[in-house]
Amino acid sequence: MTEPAYVAVDWGTSSFRLWLVDRAGQVLAERRSDEGMLAAAKAGFAAVLQSHLAAVEAPAHLPVLVCGMAGAKTGWVEAGYVDTPAPLAAILKHAARVPGEPRDIRILPGIARRDARAPDVMRGEETQLLGALGLEAAGEALVCMPGTHSKWVRVKDGTVAHFSTFMTGELFSVVSRETILSLAVANADDAEDIASFKAAVKAAYDAPAFAANLLFTARSRQLLFGGTPAAARETLSGTLIGVELAAGLSGSVPQAGITLIASGRLAMLYRHAFDALSVTVQPIDADEAVRRGLSMAAAAIWTS
Amino acid sequence: MTEPAYVAVDWGTSSFRLWLVDRAGQVLAERRSDEGMLAAAKAGFAAVLQSHLAAVEAPAHLPVLVCGMAGAKTGWVEAGYVDTPAPLAAILKHAARVPGEPRDIRILPGIARRDARAPDVMRGEETQLLGALGLEAAGEALVCMPGTHSKWVRVKDGTVAHFSTFMTGELFSVVSRETILSLAVANADDAEDIASFKAAVKAAYDAPAFAANLLFTARSRQLLFGGTPAAARETLSGTLIGVELAAGLSGSVPQAGITLIASGRLAMLYRHAFDALSVTVQPIDADEAVRRGLSMAAAAIWTS
Repeated sequence: MTEPAYVAVDWGTSSFRLWLVDRAGQVLAERRSDEGMLAAAKAGFAAVLQSHLAAVEAPAHLPVLVCGMAGAKTGWVEAGYVDTPAPLAAILKHAARVPGEPRDIRILPGIARRDARAPDVMRGEETQLLGALGLEAAGEALVCMPGTHSKWVRVKDGTVAHFSTFMTGELFSVVSRETILSLAVANADDAEDIASFKAAVKAAYDAPAFAANLLFTARSRQLLFGGTPAAARETLSGTLIGVELAAGLSGSVPQAGITLIASGRLAMLYRHAFDALSVTVQPIDADEAVRRGLSMAAAAIWTS
Repeated sequence: MTEPAYVAVDWGTSSFRLWLVDRAGQVLAERRSDEGMLAAAKAGFAAVLQSHLAAVEAPAHLPVLVCGMAGAKTGWVEAGYVDTPAPLAAILKHAARVPGEPRDIRILPGIARRDARAPDVMRGEETQLLGALGLEAAGEALVCMPGTHSKWVRVKDGTVAHFSTFMTGELFSVVSRETILSLAVANADDAEDIASFKAAVKAAYDAPAFAANLLFTARSRQLLFGGTPAAARETLSGTLIGVELAAGLSGSVPQAGITLIASGRLAMLYRHAFDALSVTVQPIDADEAVRRGLSMAAAAIWTS
């Protein structure tokens, strides 16, 4: 086995992932846990990180590069923002060093859109973008990054021109668990109902103003016509994603289509959603993208 | 004091209101509590009603007329639905008698829109409509009834042609309490910020697809530019109401404007929202409307 060169950490709001990486960018060990920013703010960021470093037997001198919400004001050490228009290369130059640590630990900054009419922030997605598009990407990309807080990002020649956050994932979570619609989706099995999902995507895309009504049909349809809890769940999911797509696709779409950076079930759902609207996507795995972005940044900071 | 002629009850999901009324429609006594359908389903509907009847010293023979969620499948006795197109007069003819009670207790039916593409249901609002518009209303009205589940109703010559439910109030509740935006509105004082509210209404009305993004700006604006928790709260409220209005006003609007049936703070907010869009409203108090509707129904059932 080769020697480790650095540790890469994707530290989100509710998840923690760590990779031990060699000079060639190969992963030597991996850790995943739910000790995200919210949990780590209680347990202590240094203690959480140290427990995972010990578990992968990281040498004491090994540097650590972090991206994500650990760099937020409410995180470990505030890593600030690079403002739009933000060259992806600028991210590498503004990593914040964690003070008082014997080890070299740095946190990458986020990106801010300091527009009073449409202010916005991201943390972690800039590193995914770096990994997905690279530093020298020529041309224009419209990137969809689904999640708790989905991001739609327009990148021109390696620079983030602007972006918007949509609370789609978090809305799905509270709407399906905390509202009257929880009755409609209760005890839903995992069986997918892609037809219901695609129909909801199209209906919401065509009439986004009716979102709060289309959500309610998940219940009224069940009351009046029956229907499975799984179908109701797909209606909620499809409605919220359809509204997001109506906004995201409202500007010009590049010839090559949408760059979709996502993993797992979310990647599958969004591929179906774009398919329902006959929009071409270029899929990129989000897990791989963030790891590649951290590797590129670590290489630039420590091995060049 | 005149003799009571009947008891009128508006029994919603989370609220209970009872009026002791004389033959002329004058209120002799009133009760309000939070023993709505959800609480009463546990405590027992008959026991809750009896305690309030005893408190107003209602004679044993006095009949009781109920509207609202007590007539739902998950309520006391299912009162069914009148289907659209639904003459408001038809509601009076389909009250469900509560079996096994010595007293004559009846529950008014709701209205259903049995349209597979846009299914919808209401319970309680049909009685408000009856009280607000009367049985013989000529012409066309577009009625906005704000609430946990806002209703927009098109009534033609005394008949409910169609209607749509918007989960605006419930979305505001869960978004401001259960999502990351709860951080932005935490400790908001009661000071109103009508300018922020109206700006959010207009922004959402103009770009309803961006709803899930406009909500998030309540947080990103605070992170990047500061701003009070009250301003953030008005942004959430204005965004959700603005999207509702974009849908509600998407069809033809009658010459006289929108009939707004609402009470208290909600009435005030919606008047500001319509004002932001320069739309004329005819305001009607919702509390008075439901009481008048129950009185009209009781008169038709028992005193004619």
